Amino acid sequence: MKLQYKKLALASLLIYRQYIRKGKQKLYLLSKRVFLISAKMAEADEQLTLLDWHPSPFTTRVRIALAEKGLNYESRQEDLSNKSSLLLEMNPVNKQIPVLIHNGRPICESMVIVQYIDEVWNHKSPLLPSDPYQRAHARFWADYIDKKVFPIGRLMWASKGEVKAASKKDLIECFKILEGELGDKPYFGGESFGYVDLSLIPFYSFFYTFETLGNLSIVEECPKIVDWAHRCLQKESVSKTLCDQRKFYEVLLELSRGGPEPKWSSVGSIDLTPLNS
Amino acid sequence: MKLQYKKLALASLLIYRQYIRKGKQKLYLLSKRVFLISAKMAEADEQLTLLDWHPSPFTTRVRIALAEKGLNYESRQEDLSNKSSLLLEMNPVNKQIPVLIHNGRPICESMVIVQYIDEVWNHKSPLLPSDPYQRAHARFWADYIDKKVFPIGRLMWASKGEVKAASKKDLIECFKILEGELGDKPYFGGESFGYVDLSLIPFYSFFYTFETLGNLSIVEECPKIVDWAHRCLQKESVSKTLCDQRKFYEVLLELSRGGPEPKWSSVGSIDLTPLNS
Repeated sequence: MKLQYKKLALASLLIYRQYIRKGKQKLYLLSKRVFLISAKMAEADEQLTLLDWHPSPFTTRVRIALAEKGLNYESRQEDLSNKSSLLLEMNPVNKQIPVLIHNGRPICESMVIVQYIDEVWNHKSPLLPSDPYQRAHARFWADYIDKKVFPIGRLMWASKGEVKAASKKDLIECFKILEGELGDKPYFGGESFGYVDLSLIPFYSFFYTFETLGNLSIVEECPKIVDWAHRCLQKESVSKTLCDQRKFYEVLLELSRGGPEPKWSSVGSIDLTPLNS
Repeated sequence: MKLQYKKLALASLLIYRQYIRKGKQKLYLLSKRVFLISAKMAEADEQLTLLDWHPSPFTTRVRIALAEKGLNYESRQEDLSNKSSLLLEMNPVNKQIPVLIHNGRPICESMVIVQYIDEVWNHKSPLLPSDPYQRAHARFWADYIDKKVFPIGRLMWASKGEVKAASKKDLIECFKILEGELGDKPYFGGESFGYVDLSLIPFYSFFYTFETLGNLSIVEECPKIVDWAHRCLQKESVSKTLCDQRKFYEVLLELSRGGPEPKWSSVGSIDLTPLNS
């Protein structure tokens, strides 16, 4: 059924283009309407399930991408200390969230999923730019964020003494470098919210935790990043999706219980292996 | 000048398609010839410089991608203990090789560069599949290789005792998982060499080092991976590009000199920060 709607959408799009070229207004408006309805029907017929855990910045990325594209999906909350058999079956290699299941087929790793969503539903709210150089630029920064923000942030909140002080300095430096890349643009992607914004904004949920456990003020150190985050939050796809900062902190405290030393098992991350630092 | 060739190529391609539709054979053959010549001229006019270090698996990936596309480039060998001002200028954030400079503009991070090359020169030897699901699948496995092979391998050769034993086990498990993904296909990409093959094959240069410093036989543990590597080596883009296994080992020994304890500074990697393990 889904395939038929897709074929109808494609056919009506081709007809629409022909009528446009011939300047036949009534006919191209009619075929445009057929295209929009069939595209919507094809979409409604897609089965999307997200293996999710609300506080995770990695699943949040996927939720934002799905919201940006206006896609409906079922969110299944995982218990990370007792992972579902569906998660183990769908991601047997890494056994991690997020997993997006699209018509029965799993896609794993947050930024791989985001690119997949952007490629499959490419007619609405493009996330990656179309120019190859700009795409490479966006991928570089998303990779930088992946390699820096979470590992350094986690080290800061989970360590003590010199390590804590060094990672606090590293975290501020990382945000300053990101501020440099942002420059005077409203978003990392330029005039509109895009791939890099989407990869970074979920970590805004960590800011209260960073400030409380790191004894620092992000707004004082990096005001432009906070301004940018507030701008992102004006978008429904972000504001309705992000985990609240205080709630994230409470989840972290909850998970850290269980002994005189907090366990700080990689919270917000994807597995529960202890942090070796 | 380059832009003019590109415009000519594009125009002749459009004309070619029109003549094809009209069935005018002589004219479409002529416009096809104009297209091929102008595309070649546009390519010849591209300026490509690779900030390179021959033994690095990360720069090797880029060299293979460039060879697959049949592109000429200048390779500038970097001294990683005394990085060039060009490298620091072109990659001020990570200060790492590889950097591909295309007509003066830098692209950094090996797999970001490979995707850029694949997108810009997309008319020859596609590396990523065209289907979004297959693309996501390939990106997942390249990401797995990035997160596992080098970090585990380095830990194995640079550590002792229990850590060494555990990482040796992890490395073999990692290769066995990759063998599972390969299955009975000649390449990870299926019938032809692709993105995942390109991301993994540079680590074949490490095999002698893994075996010597880890006291193991990869061919005994994971014969299918060795078979696959030999298949890849039948391609000129690989065999002419890869660092020789013994040579890599010698480079490693050379770099480890300087005290009673080998430094094993992240050799083959991109910076020289000491390994904290």
